[in-house]
Amino acid sequence: MGTEIRSATAADVTQILAFIRALAAYERAPEAVVATEDGLLRDGFGPNPIYFCLIADHDGQPAGFALYFYNYSTWLGQPGIYLEDLFVLPEFRGLGIGKALLKRVAEIAVEKGCQRLQWEVLDWNTPAIDFYRAMGAEFLDEWRNVRLNGDAIRRIADGPGNRQMETQP
Amino acid sequence: MGTEIRSATAADVTQILAFIRALAAYERAPEAVVATEDGLLRDGFGPNPIYFCLIADHDGQPAGFALYFYNYSTWLGQPGIYLEDLFVLPEFRGLGIGKALLKRVAEIAVEKGCQRLQWEVLDWNTPAIDFYRAMGAEFLDEWRNVRLNGDAIRRIADGPGNRQMETQP
Repeated sequence: MGTEIRSATAADVTQILAFIRALAAYERAPEAVVATEDGLLRDGFGPNPIYFCLIADHDGQPAGFALYFYNYSTWLGQPGIYLEDLFVLPEFRGLGIGKALLKRVAEIAVEKGCQRLQWEVLDWNTPAIDFYRAMGAEFLDEWRNVRLNGDAIRRIADGPGNRQMETQP
Repeated sequence: MGTEIRSATAADVTQILAFIRALAAYERAPEAVVATEDGLLRDGFGPNPIYFCLIADHDGQPAGFALYFYNYSTWLGQPGIYLEDLFVLPEFRGLGIGKALLKRVAEIAVEKGCQRLQWEVLDWNTPAIDFYRAMGAEFLDEWRNVRLNGDAIRRIADGPGNRQMETQP
């Protein structure tokens, strides 16, 4: 038996949502998950998937997951992989399952010719930071992450642009 | 005349690459750009574009660009927009062109139902940081960006996984 890494299918969405909720609880934001099974099904398992998901089964039990999508580097002029989530349930830790998931993502990056594999980690998550550093990861600490949420997006979309500044020739 | 924001076409790739190079020079990494026109054409203007690009023309001259792609939030269970590049040539600054580009990206986010618009900024780029803060952006400073480059990716892909640890039943 041991650990098996496999591509998720539509039949896994209940489990994927359970993993997402467990990860959010670990990241101290359990109330932040508003994702639904329907949305995950639509976005990951339709004709043009927006994300891709791997499941780690250990002795036949779902033990962890990795969820990723493709981003784009204008400096390299090619797509890379952005790892949105990597998580192993607490009761399955210490078995190398996180490393096995990351190895499979790295294999996919090689297959697709991607020169970059990126993700984010919370600054207090020392075990994860140490794990990533040991794998040869760089920390891009000079870059700050900026986000506009729904209300701010709508305010900007509806606000004055410089179209108002346009003059007729 | 004034400023016009339009979707880039395949005919713009030479200009897009020039913008990418000018932005990299501003970000003090001019040697980092290895992108080619062929690659930009393939990835942005084929049947399934990986990225999308807007061009700002000012009085008929290319003045700036915004380049974005879709990411995915597992907490929201829906796609968002990741703004990879937003840049206005130095000689066209102070005319509201950056704001007009960001407004158009925000309009697209609203059209697509995206609740998040994200990007990164260098920590020394105070004018940009002030501009973003004034627009209502949040800075997610508790998240560190982690990256594996080509060599590290291959080392992990080729290295031992816990497949070796699997035992037969």
